[in-house]
Amino acid sequence: MKIKVVQNVLRANDAVAAENRQRFGALGLTVLNLISAPGSGKTALLERTLDALNAGRCAVLVGDLATTRDAERLGRHCPNVVQINTGKGCHLDAAQIAAGLRDLAVDQLDWLFIENVGNMVCPTEFDLGEHAKVALISTVEGEDKPVKYPTLFQKATCVVLTKTDLAAASGFDRDRFYAELRQVNSDAPVIETSSRTGQGVDNWLAWLNRFRATVLNSRG
Amino acid sequence: MKIKVVQNVLRANDAVAAENRQRFGALGLTVLNLISAPGSGKTALLERTLDALNAGRCAVLVGDLATTRDAERLGRHCPNVVQINTGKGCHLDAAQIAAGLRDLAVDQLDWLFIENVGNMVCPTEFDLGEHAKVALISTVEGEDKPVKYPTLFQKATCVVLTKTDLAAASGFDRDRFYAELRQVNSDAPVIETSSRTGQGVDNWLAWLNRFRATVLNSRG
Repeated sequence: MKIKVVQNVLRANDAVAAENRQRFGALGLTVLNLISAPGSGKTALLERTLDALNAGRCAVLVGDLATTRDAERLGRHCPNVVQINTGKGCHLDAAQIAAGLRDLAVDQLDWLFIENVGNMVCPTEFDLGEHAKVALISTVEGEDKPVKYPTLFQKATCVVLTKTDLAAASGFDRDRFYAELRQVNSDAPVIETSSRTGQGVDNWLAWLNRFRATVLNSRG
Repeated sequence: MKIKVVQNVLRANDAVAAENRQRFGALGLTVLNLISAPGSGKTALLERTLDALNAGRCAVLVGDLATTRDAERLGRHCPNVVQINTGKGCHLDAAQIAAGLRDLAVDQLDWLFIENVGNMVCPTEFDLGEHAKVALISTVEGEDKPVKYPTLFQKATCVVLTKTDLAAASGFDRDRFYAELRQVNSDAPVIETSSRTGQGVDNWLAWLNRFRATVLNSRG
């Protein structure tokens, strides 16, 4: 019974996600869903990203249980930021994204970044209509996370390894990380970044632009 | 409708949790539920803990979506470790704890440590019958996490601030952390530890022993 209800919820979500996806396509909007544990650096990477892109053509929908902290941070880098407070909700769903879009001038945007609730598990199950899921993991979280939380990494189109400036201090084993990640995802690109030093952010921006070109080309 | 079903699930869980709690009391078993984001250092703290306590009188039930990695690590420090794989499940529930107990000689134990699935949100909602929830947060996750994920910190009997050896390198703002934590939990003790250097582990062990004495005294 419990499983059946969860399936119903997911099916209802998928229907709204399909509507979102169609809308994103019609608008020429490229939409990324950033998922990670709390504190992996989603907001910091977005701050760097918004500073480098044309921020007026970007929007961010940011999910947290409580507070508007992330929206306040991101609002200093972009005029189009909407905070979604989920209360006890452990993920964003497609209807919340559809509702969040109502507060944005979507026809003036190229990019929509969705910063999901900090959680490696639940957000993975809810399609938001995005073009790609981006999984973030920091060097301090441990090399074993891709195999322990495989669903996120299996579904990720791109993996961003964050906080490389802390890799040495935390004893991060890069070879083991890649070996374990490749057990669950054989081909997603991995982009190593430090939002503090800026290292690797250029590679992330290059991936973003290539990805957007691919999405736009696929519209035919 | 969705809310109603979730309430039913929680009510069913609470009934099993009450049975667990009664059983723990009858056995004189002290039970802690360790909750944190992935990679905050739950397993590392337990390794230190098991080395310091009489490990034969300890057991660990450890939840992960996949793999037996944590059980393998902990099994080197304690003979009584059971891995619970949750598949896509984002938390442990009371029935999983009851089932896990069947694999343990519970009448020979003083301590049961439950290492929950790495997730700051969902595990908080599911009573397992434990005597206390212990919230872990590492210095690298950001000072804003207590107010962004308030439920965990509100329910925590004890907060362990981990990875203090990385505090300086990660720019951790200790004053801000305490100020924000105290907005959501005015009185839980905070124990600062580094499982790598061992710093503060003695304080954690002292808290554990005081807590066990309190639990045993309350049985009258």
